[in-house]
Amino acid sequence: MEFPKLRNDLILRAARGEDVERVPVWAMRQAGRYLPEFRKVREDHDFFKICRTPELACEITLQPILRFDLDAAIIFSDILVIPQALGLVVEMVPGKGPHFPQPIREPQDLERVATTVDIQMELGYVMDAVALTRVRLDGKVPLVGFCGAPWTLMSYMIEGGGSPSFPHAKRWLYTYPDESTKLLGIITEVCVNYLVAKVKSGAQMLQVFESHAGILTISQFRQFALPFISAIARRVKEALGDEAVPMTYFSRGGHHAIGTIAESGYDVISVDWTIEPEEARKLVGPNVTLQGNLDPCALFSGEEKLASLTRDMLDKFGCKRYIANLGHGMMPDFKPESLEVFVNTVHSHSEKLLS
Amino acid sequence: MEFPKLRNDLILRAARGEDVERVPVWAMRQAGRYLPEFRKVREDHDFFKICRTPELACEITLQPILRFDLDAAIIFSDILVIPQALGLVVEMVPGKGPHFPQPIREPQDLERVATTVDIQMELGYVMDAVALTRVRLDGKVPLVGFCGAPWTLMSYMIEGGGSPSFPHAKRWLYTYPDESTKLLGIITEVCVNYLVAKVKSGAQMLQVFESHAGILTISQFRQFALPFISAIARRVKEALGDEAVPMTYFSRGGHHAIGTIAESGYDVISVDWTIEPEEARKLVGPNVTLQGNLDPCALFSGEEKLASLTRDMLDKFGCKRYIANLGHGMMPDFKPESLEVFVNTVHSHSEKLLS
Repeated sequence: MEFPKLRNDLILRAARGEDVERVPVWAMRQAGRYLPEFRKVREDHDFFKICRTPELACEITLQPILRFDLDAAIIFSDILVIPQALGLVVEMVPGKGPHFPQPIREPQDLERVATTVDIQMELGYVMDAVALTRVRLDGKVPLVGFCGAPWTLMSYMIEGGGSPSFPHAKRWLYTYPDESTKLLGIITEVCVNYLVAKVKSGAQMLQVFESHAGILTISQFRQFALPFISAIARRVKEALGDEAVPMTYFSRGGHHAIGTIAESGYDVISVDWTIEPEEARKLVGPNVTLQGNLDPCALFSGEEKLASLTRDMLDKFGCKRYIANLGHGMMPDFKPESLEVFVNTVHSHSEKLLS
Repeated sequence: MEFPKLRNDLILRAARGEDVERVPVWAMRQAGRYLPEFRKVREDHDFFKICRTPELACEITLQPILRFDLDAAIIFSDILVIPQALGLVVEMVPGKGPHFPQPIREPQDLERVATTVDIQMELGYVMDAVALTRVRLDGKVPLVGFCGAPWTLMSYMIEGGGSPSFPHAKRWLYTYPDESTKLLGIITEVCVNYLVAKVKSGAQMLQVFESHAGILTISQFRQFALPFISAIARRVKEALGDEAVPMTYFSRGGHHAIGTIAESGYDVISVDWTIEPEEARKLVGPNVTLQGNLDPCALFSGEEKLASLTRDMLDKFGCKRYIANLGHGMMPDFKPESLEVFVNTVHSHSEKLLS
């Protein structure tokens, strides 16, 4: 398929370690409830209905691009479409988050999980949304595709929703290590095929979200997270060959492991706000691009303070091998103007630093 | 007041860096819902009713001591009794946790917060519970008193309950830094007087709980947490003089800061399960006792695996300047037998290592 020519490849160059004239910037969950135009669409449509309707997913993906000078779009979807494709029911409960009416609790529940997934049949709607959005973006910025990391998806599937410590999921790691490995393998297989299909449909970069790294011990991370995220990076790149795109791994609370992750095949490591930029660079070494990491709550600050915090972040990360972002996603209570201050400050300050 | 003579001072010696013949062990939330005898008391009494009734608080404090070979008792109470003493209503909602019907949301809400607290009048029930329990313990093991750390208490008071990221409380730090400092100062004052009173009532060791360290940036930790917890250690010890007892600081997710905390006057630093023992020791240096840090969910394991994980923890921490504990509290779904395996393995393995 022929897509419009890309006019802003800043983020792709930063991911590959090439020179940039200004630092690329985007924000996780940049299409979200903090935007009145997003809330308006949500008034009429259920969350997963939007994910499943390419025209709506495309519209919402483009909303922040129309408002702000962002350097990437990320397709509107949810990490839990993979558990759905595996046969589980997932609902989005307003004000509460995701809910699985029938989570996996014991090994025999694995019978309810598909062992293989026909990506086009189960998740074709995402591919349609990606292709449509790539066309509508008209080459303005690259389109990012994403999935949840296997451990994070497994923890939701077992816990059945959010939790401070995911005790049910953790119980599996201790009680059923073999079954855990089996489930992680099934999820990994779907992630690989899903991400490859996304690129073939038009995604120009990929991000894997590990939201629940911070509840694992280091040895659990090495056993139940790292091998699977490494496999995803390796296999997606192998499958795509010359078409391979830069890949990013984001983890919340996974500092104990980011040194190891840097050797696992990802081009970009996205870090949360609790690690200092200099420390993150020391841990990942010079050959990986860092992404992050302003405390999202800094967007509650007044304009001047927010700009100052953003400049400080840039000064610490430097402008090479760096993609500016928040340390986690945008929150419903933020004012849209705050994201504008963040984005514009990244651009103006980095242009100054690079001139 | 004359109390029965202490017959097991292992934990006090470990806290002071003295020699021990076996490693002391206890578990955070060792008096809790995982015990059938606890659930039985809770059937008839509201959570805070138990805190406010010395006879009941004492009974529950002693429950795990009667069952297991623990080296410390911790008075049954809650960190949120301080916000209550400051004038806020706090309810414990079953299956959901603490709930403030009227949280602090804007600076003018500080008018609802008392500026000084008469500890005996507002929290005398805790002192009565401490004194009664100290007598009933009959010198078997030391009695630990505790409070929440100022930032953790402030975050609950503003957020109004648990939250993955405490956005309202974080907003205060960015938007109202002066008012945040003022509120933290008020809380600190109460913590100091409260802990001093606890020791005067019979507590033989103190622990400060920082449950929400992991959502702060490093500079926020330095500005809004560290000065206040340092002040607590310094002022409590000054006020007690010769009567001073060992003090422990526990933080969840506060690794970025434990090196600094080690210089803030605490005798013991209690770490969660996401940090490796060797790394924790490297960060705190040789002159502080470490406490922790088995992943609580390891108690879901079978007996053999749990014992092996416990031995591994001991091998890594070593037996000097060390108090065995979990990396966080006991959970309702645990079997009481698991804590028994943990406690007995700490004792038998450390005796072997020390012989």
